[in-house]
Amino acid sequence: MTYCVGLLLRDGMVLLSDTRTNAGLDNIATYRKMFVFEDTGERVITILTAGSLSVTQTTIARLRDAMDDPESTPETSIMKAPTLLKVAELVGNTLARVRSDIDEKLSAMGQGASASMIVAGQRRGGAMRMFLIYPEGNFIEATEDTPFLQIGEHKYGKPILDRVVKAHTSLADAQKAVLLSMDSTLRSNLSVGMPLDLAVIERDACRVTLRRRIEAGDESFRAMSDAWSNALREGFTRITV
Amino acid sequence: MTYCVGLLLRDGMVLLSDTRTNAGLDNIATYRKMFVFEDTGERVITILTAGSLSVTQTTIARLRDAMDDPESTPETSIMKAPTLLKVAELVGNTLARVRSDIDEKLSAMGQGASASMIVAGQRRGGAMRMFLIYPEGNFIEATEDTPFLQIGEHKYGKPILDRVVKAHTSLADAQKAVLLSMDSTLRSNLSVGMPLDLAVIERDACRVTLRRRIEAGDESFRAMSDAWSNALREGFTRITV
Repeated sequence: MTYCVGLLLRDGMVLLSDTRTNAGLDNIATYRKMFVFEDTGERVITILTAGSLSVTQTTIARLRDAMDDPESTPETSIMKAPTLLKVAELVGNTLARVRSDIDEKLSAMGQGASASMIVAGQRRGGAMRMFLIYPEGNFIEATEDTPFLQIGEHKYGKPILDRVVKAHTSLADAQKAVLLSMDSTLRSNLSVGMPLDLAVIERDACRVTLRRRIEAGDESFRAMSDAWSNALREGFTRITV
Repeated sequence: MTYCVGLLLRDGMVLLSDTRTNAGLDNIATYRKMFVFEDTGERVITILTAGSLSVTQTTIARLRDAMDDPESTPETSIMKAPTLLKVAELVGNTLARVRSDIDEKLSAMGQGASASMIVAGQRRGGAMRMFLIYPEGNFIEATEDTPFLQIGEHKYGKPILDRVVKAHTSLADAQKAVLLSMDSTLRSNLSVGMPLDLAVIERDACRVTLRRRIEAGDESFRAMSDAWSNALREGFTRITV
């Protein structure tokens, strides 16, 4: 399983992903699920992935190949596409093709493979945009009303986001919110695991302004997690039914 | 959908269920999902249900029929069964038979029906016990280590239980915990809805010692929900990353 979350706020975008993959409970590994493509000051695109690793790796590999191709065009490369909407379409189409290819191979075994992605970015002169790409290649977009998108194991970490994240939330509070959302998920679902990848993209910077890998023993993450547990328990104690 | 939760604590048991059922999003109704069978001071059994209404209603009806049958025996009636384990087996077998009957009818349409239940109770001289019955009729039991069971939409409401519920939690705190767990679920899943049914069974009382229906406009529930939101927001504000 996986948990990835992206926040689209007035001041910028905050993205967080875990790194655990598993084929059964007895085969656990660590893979990066956050991919950053950057032409500093011109364009930044971040892709978060959830689902079958064979689907997500192949999709990212094909997107990279298309980018690196010396004959790439705005129709084929996400780094040349004229708009972020076009980027989402390119990612969606690539994902849908890969999924369909792999699904066909697996169907003989009565199995299937699927994946979804969050695509977030900005190009110079354009607006920040964030999309959730479904396995079929279609997508939805984050808005002022619903400024966050989640993929993977989204339920445990949703209540905190529902309560504290608004479009005007500061980037500092947004980092806290996604980390606490992840903390709740880590506690409840073993198939979501450290280390974590955090990225912050300030509005109009067109580059990743903060990037941090949070390892399993990270002191500040543990302190925050403990403080949150204490705050919840204190709040709980104070409430009267 | 549904959310039902049961806590098995040293001082007693606390049970909470919602009442929303739906056949599609455009056909929503209110049905009780908590059923109490009581021979005051001798035996109390509470059943919480989740899943296909046709399965749960038929299962409860058959259990009642068996109880009311003048020729009922300890082998057929949950009110005569010698132990709570036997009660769980009776409920499990009845559920599995009903589910299999209905599944067979539905399979012609390529559909299926399923249901799960929480069975909690005590007989005079016995221990309090709480079981989660799976659609196939097998079951697991709550223990000191994991003193709560959930059926239906369990994920949104699990983090609060994980953090505050221990076997030695007081019955007052336990009521708060299940109500806050339900509150998080109500916020995130429209197919879980008010009114709520709450029951408390004090240890060795062998009867439901508190029973409360919480209607949609309930002032104390709303106040508790608001207080919890405030506590979360305050706690969130105080934490530094």
